Amino acid sequence: MARLMQPLRQEEIMARIAVVLAKDFEDSELRIPLERLKAAGHKLTLLGKRAGETLEGKRHEEKATIEAAVSERKAEDFDGLLIPGGYSPDQLRTDESVVRFVQSMAMQKKPIAAICHGPQLLIEAKLVRGKTLTPWPSVRTDLENAGAAWVDQQVVRDDNLITSRGPADLEAFSAAFNEALG
Amino acid sequence: MARLMQPLRQEEIMARIAVVLAKDFEDSELRIPLERLKAAGHKLTLLGKRAGETLEGKRHEEKATIEAAVSERKAEDFDGLLIPGGYSPDQLRTDESVVRFVQSMAMQKKPIAAICHGPQLLIEAKLVRGKTLTPWPSVRTDLENAGAAWVDQQVVRDDNLITSRGPADLEAFSAAFNEALG
Repeated sequence: MARLMQPLRQEEIMARIAVVLAKDFEDSELRIPLERLKAAGHKLTLLGKRAGETLEGKRHEEKATIEAAVSERKAEDFDGLLIPGGYSPDQLRTDESVVRFVQSMAMQKKPIAAICHGPQLLIEAKLVRGKTLTPWPSVRTDLENAGAAWVDQQVVRDDNLITSRGPADLEAFSAAFNEALG
Repeated sequence: MARLMQPLRQEEIMARIAVVLAKDFEDSELRIPLERLKAAGHKLTLLGKRAGETLEGKRHEEKATIEAAVSERKAEDFDGLLIPGGYSPDQLRTDESVVRFVQSMAMQKKPIAAICHGPQLLIEAKLVRGKTLTPWPSVRTDLENAGAAWVDQQVVRDDNLITSRGPADLEAFSAAFNEALG
């Protein structure tokens, strides 16, 4: 009987995670982290430029509907941020409300997990100077020019930033983000 | 009769232009410059990672077959370089033979025309420091971090570099490249 009086353990550990997404995302980089994070009990909310917009991945394997525009949500409402890769970050980085949201999450020291081209959005938000990251190979030079240190690893955690190179690293990436969410 | 003894004027003004391309290029940024440059009498050669590969544009409007791998051609064989945008430059920038080819074209002071995301390849080739360019909006921060000056114009020519923002600028871009080719 005593056990029933305690709050549910599941609710205690649940984190609210924002996922920022635009079209042509890397399909697996949405699918796998979502599966792993949901399995860990976390709640995920897809944010984008427009609420209700249905986005397709670049491989046409995944479709996702945006639950709310980034401009309609506050960083205070979330415990972590996921940035899938593919060509999605290239489009998100030109949207000021997205960039400001990412900056607010960083100011509040929330874990930010960015994979593949995801660090492009971290460059735009001016969050990478002096940090160590591991991105998709094409993003290396832009990261270094922005003052970051580049390494070639499955996953890197530097302070609140968790990064991975691409689809082959998804399990390690999801596990590291999960751990950072506590 | 004397006229027949002269070399054909068409051959005199013809320039040999290399086009570097990977999949998911912006369809119109291949189609329009090719039409305009061919109409001006220039000879265009599509170069990529692998000879014989057929590439599709991101809008599935255009298909193009690569005539030769970049590694099989020398900058000496061309008078100008065209870099269409879309997601093609993101893939080309991780190929060392492509980056070296772009650098060789620049060393030889040949006109290089890059539109939209094309300047990503110029960043990788370390050709933008101190130059003024106009790219697709998402490339602005990466250009500035690489030491370039960014402007928002239809077309910019700085020394041998000709750049434009995107599809809406294609006529001005093609005309400026044509002029630079003399």
